[in-house]
Amino acid sequence: MLRTHTCGELTISNLGETVTLCGWVQKSRDLGATTFIDVRDRYGLTQLVLNTDNDATLREKAKGLGREFVLKVTGKVIERTSKNAKMITGDIEIAVTDIEILNSSKTPPFIIEDETDGGEELRAKYRYLDLRRNPIRNNLMLRHKMAQEIRKYLDGLDFIEVETPVLIKSTPEGARDFVVPSRMNPGEFYALPQSPQTFKQLLMVSGFDRYFQIVKCFRDEDLRADRQPEFTQIDCELSFITQEDILNIFEGLTRHLFKTVKGIDLVKFPRMQYADAMRLYGSDKPDLRFGMEFVELNGIMKGKNFSIFDNAELIVGINAKGCAEYTRKQLDELTEWLKRPQIGATGLIYCRYGTDGTLKSSVDKFYGEDDLTNLAAALSAEPGDLILILAGQSQKVRKQMNELRLEMGTRLGLRNKNDFAPLWVLDFPLLEWDEETERYHAMHHPFTSPKPEDIAMLDTEPGEVRANAYDLVINGTEIGGGSIRIHDRTLQALMFKHLGFSPEEAQKQFGFLMDAFEYGAPPHGGIAFGFDRLCSIFAGLDSIRDVIAFPKNNSGRDVMIDTPSSISDAQLNELKITTTLPL
Amino acid sequence: MLRTHTCGELTISNLGETVTLCGWVQKSRDLGATTFIDVRDRYGLTQLVLNTDNDATLREKAKGLGREFVLKVTGKVIERTSKNAKMITGDIEIAVTDIEILNSSKTPPFIIEDETDGGEELRAKYRYLDLRRNPIRNNLMLRHKMAQEIRKYLDGLDFIEVETPVLIKSTPEGARDFVVPSRMNPGEFYALPQSPQTFKQLLMVSGFDRYFQIVKCFRDEDLRADRQPEFTQIDCELSFITQEDILNIFEGLTRHLFKTVKGIDLVKFPRMQYADAMRLYGSDKPDLRFGMEFVELNGIMKGKNFSIFDNAELIVGINAKGCAEYTRKQLDELTEWLKRPQIGATGLIYCRYGTDGTLKSSVDKFYGEDDLTNLAAALSAEPGDLILILAGQSQKVRKQMNELRLEMGTRLGLRNKNDFAPLWVLDFPLLEWDEETERYHAMHHPFTSPKPEDIAMLDTEPGEVRANAYDLVINGTEIGGGSIRIHDRTLQALMFKHLGFSPEEAQKQFGFLMDAFEYGAPPHGGIAFGFDRLCSIFAGLDSIRDVIAFPKNNSGRDVMIDTPSSISDAQLNELKITTTLPL
Repeated sequence: MLRTHTCGELTISNLGETVTLCGWVQKSRDLGATTFIDVRDRYGLTQLVLNTDNDATLREKAKGLGREFVLKVTGKVIERTSKNAKMITGDIEIAVTDIEILNSSKTPPFIIEDETDGGEELRAKYRYLDLRRNPIRNNLMLRHKMAQEIRKYLDGLDFIEVETPVLIKSTPEGARDFVVPSRMNPGEFYALPQSPQTFKQLLMVSGFDRYFQIVKCFRDEDLRADRQPEFTQIDCELSFITQEDILNIFEGLTRHLFKTVKGIDLVKFPRMQYADAMRLYGSDKPDLRFGMEFVELNGIMKGKNFSIFDNAELIVGINAKGCAEYTRKQLDELTEWLKRPQIGATGLIYCRYGTDGTLKSSVDKFYGEDDLTNLAAALSAEPGDLILILAGQSQKVRKQMNELRLEMGTRLGLRNKNDFAPLWVLDFPLLEWDEETERYHAMHHPFTSPKPEDIAMLDTEPGEVRANAYDLVINGTEIGGGSIRIHDRTLQALMFKHLGFSPEEAQKQFGFLMDAFEYGAPPHGGIAFGFDRLCSIFAGLDSIRDVIAFPKNNSGRDVMIDTPSSISDAQLNELKITTTLPL
Repeated sequence: MLRTHTCGELTISNLGETVTLCGWVQKSRDLGATTFIDVRDRYGLTQLVLNTDNDATLREKAKGLGREFVLKVTGKVIERTSKNAKMITGDIEIAVTDIEILNSSKTPPFIIEDETDGGEELRAKYRYLDLRRNPIRNNLMLRHKMAQEIRKYLDGLDFIEVETPVLIKSTPEGARDFVVPSRMNPGEFYALPQSPQTFKQLLMVSGFDRYFQIVKCFRDEDLRADRQPEFTQIDCELSFITQEDILNIFEGLTRHLFKTVKGIDLVKFPRMQYADAMRLYGSDKPDLRFGMEFVELNGIMKGKNFSIFDNAELIVGINAKGCAEYTRKQLDELTEWLKRPQIGATGLIYCRYGTDGTLKSSVDKFYGEDDLTNLAAALSAEPGDLILILAGQSQKVRKQMNELRLEMGTRLGLRNKNDFAPLWVLDFPLLEWDEETERYHAMHHPFTSPKPEDIAMLDTEPGEVRANAYDLVINGTEIGGGSIRIHDRTLQALMFKHLGFSPEEAQKQFGFLMDAFEYGAPPHGGIAFGFDRLCSIFAGLDSIRDVIAFPKNNSGRDVMIDTPSSISDAQLNELKITTTLPL
């Protein structure tokens, strides 16, 4: 080692020792006879003191040192006169006798500190410098720790980590595959996996019993702030289990992580039917850090000649506790916010419950005091509260009210990043209607089993069929999802039929899996967690970007290494492909 | 859970308990009044006994059971009359009261037992059935255990596992990249990494200090028995270290694995210069499970008018202990074996040291008794030994003698799969001459640092420059390799120049790394282990295939899922590419 210690470990107990440290110059203060330098490595910061008055060589070297220079310094551990209780090394400093400059540095394009002056694009281009900043490095250390704990927990429960292939077969179903031309098989392509779904099911057929993998997956979709073309999944599958077993095991995993990584003891996770989640929160991933449940108001608000309500399929209200003082301007602003195309509400009705006990609504023309008293009671409103009401087509109005609820939760400070509200959402629909293609798609994937008692409805009311499918939600974000799978060839073929596959298409794409089901497939099920997302929740971040060492931007580009990029004609020729761009 | 216990855990201590097991029918013996069934899962095998005489339902069900049916059985644990001491569950059996058939099975295309009757191709197509066999599943469980122990060891030494991107930039250097067309950036491509080399170096620039990753890498090369288009690396990098530190840490890792996974205590690994390895074994990865070192014989054998030796650049011999009794026919056969084009020797000279003390060579015409006595002494031969000699151009003859030495080692039973002989090979050449392109290539990769004292020779004798590079060899197989890297932009640019890059090419391909070196890059180095290879050595296998769950064949195909395959025109259109196959 070039060093005897790291920059994060020396304390008063090391007084008098001669030590050698390596690290980067965080800052340097030249006080004439003395120069102070903070030297930094992954482990911490240590203060160096150089008595340059009597040592011309040291003086010369100290003068040339800039920020981010890499040093190897030797000296004696001495006690500081002004201690810094915030740092482990805050009681000591190093009286330097020798400095070696291991490497120099140009002035970095932004400040390498917890708060930096670099814009997003600049930091992306110099990602290797951004990664020097403590917050970002801490996120990646957190991620490492979580991965270690996940493996420890699952290994302890007899799960085996098995690597499934990355070069697999393209399937036209679902989101888009990345493809890889095969040089050895010209004209043919591999695809990168969107998930190891079929492989983990085959491992169950193979009798592996309990499988997991922390694994990269790929999706060539248009990117949003929170999507990356490559992402990491905690992928799990088990045989001979029930849904209840899976919920318990992975609730256990989640609690283990909160306990070991964040020191937080979570109580037993609540569970909610998908249908209830939609009714009470307008979302299949409700944020349960706060209440503000929807109250359906058709019974109270209809039939009073207010045509908007009378014509609405659904009238739904929430109680914004303590917001009665909202001004007209604030309410107008909120209404405009709701009317933006992203949300698409047609308007907002409100009712203030004044601290003086008076009820005042934006539709007083239609509703008398009794009506408003009934309304307030339905929403358990008290003096000081504000009731917000939306109306329209049920599905749309629930979605809009979900947005409004979350917005009010944020405004009221009810969505603290250090609070964690996990929730199991159960009994998802099996199928979902796709407006564009005008047919049903699998809500999870085509391998999800329907509830036995609902199978009969596949022909009559396919949209009503429930699946043995479950999601784990934390703070309004879907963290994981899974299902009990189909393990029977006949039922799997029926599912493919209902998803619009011809028997030939089904055989061509998933024949290997259906064949496998004929050789003693066990009952099985599983779950997959979005690991990036889980890490970002643990790190208290909104985006997954900063829990990924080298993320791509919204165009799928890595601006640091400048990829994707063109490749040579020779390479294209070898692969027997060409690009078809207009000249 | 559908079961109360696994099929591998019930013992005499469970007598009298009512249990439920799930598993596959391994075999079934109908003895009239009683049927015995062996039921199997990942954890073991348990014997079921069905008294079908008094139970018509049970009798009916038992009759229909074929191999590989999936059962759920309930019954009482009873003591066996004829115990099987080889099995954990060998003292008990289950007196079955209820059987549920969870799934039926067609007759498998080959026998699911340790020794199977299935050919390689059939087993590949039904890989999910082959994976049911104990030896294959055990290999994958071994692999899981090794991965867990690797992570535990490295985590304990403050290494952080960081995921580096899979969609990276194509580089024309070295072996072939797989490329991935970008839909969002038409005409541009990602590449899949051959290794995370540049990213791990950037993580050192970022101050991560100690990085590792167990990671998939990709190489689009023509495949040999032992190559896969996707393979797994244990990839590591450290800052502020010396070569000595790296050797110690990763020798420690290897010993930890042998200890925890195989219960073997290895002594300190020997170390050997690359030059010595070539001289003594004709290989940079000598198998040290046996001696049989080369002895160079120019001094003894030249100048005796035997023109083949007189004209040879190098004459080299080995001592095949105890082989003096080899018949003329055996020696002719060995000569033919050496003359095959794969080896390409022109002939084999031998000298028998008879048990009666006489020396008899195939070139007695040129060499008298004194000469042969000298020869025998040089090779420390004793009565009963056989001296084998090859001559020719040094590099070629060393390669040929390496093959001969390994062959003789195998014939003499000196290469036991349960013996492990690790070795560090040090000080590799920096550059290696490529006949085809008529220029020097980096022997490891262009980021390897030359020995400072050799840098001056870069211009004069580039082939003589040694690198700070090292390989870990076990039993004649390269398990890992690494180097101390260049961390200085000027030296890196010099290296690119010597590798034939123009400054523009170097900047275009590796500009991000050279730029990074200008912002305080620390001295760093690392190593990468071939994880598949390491697993296969631990499992005692010759090929890596059976430590990979779903391997590809020699044409890069997965015959089970039938990939690579053609993709639709719509998909090609979206990607703005087309294939250029002749019609």
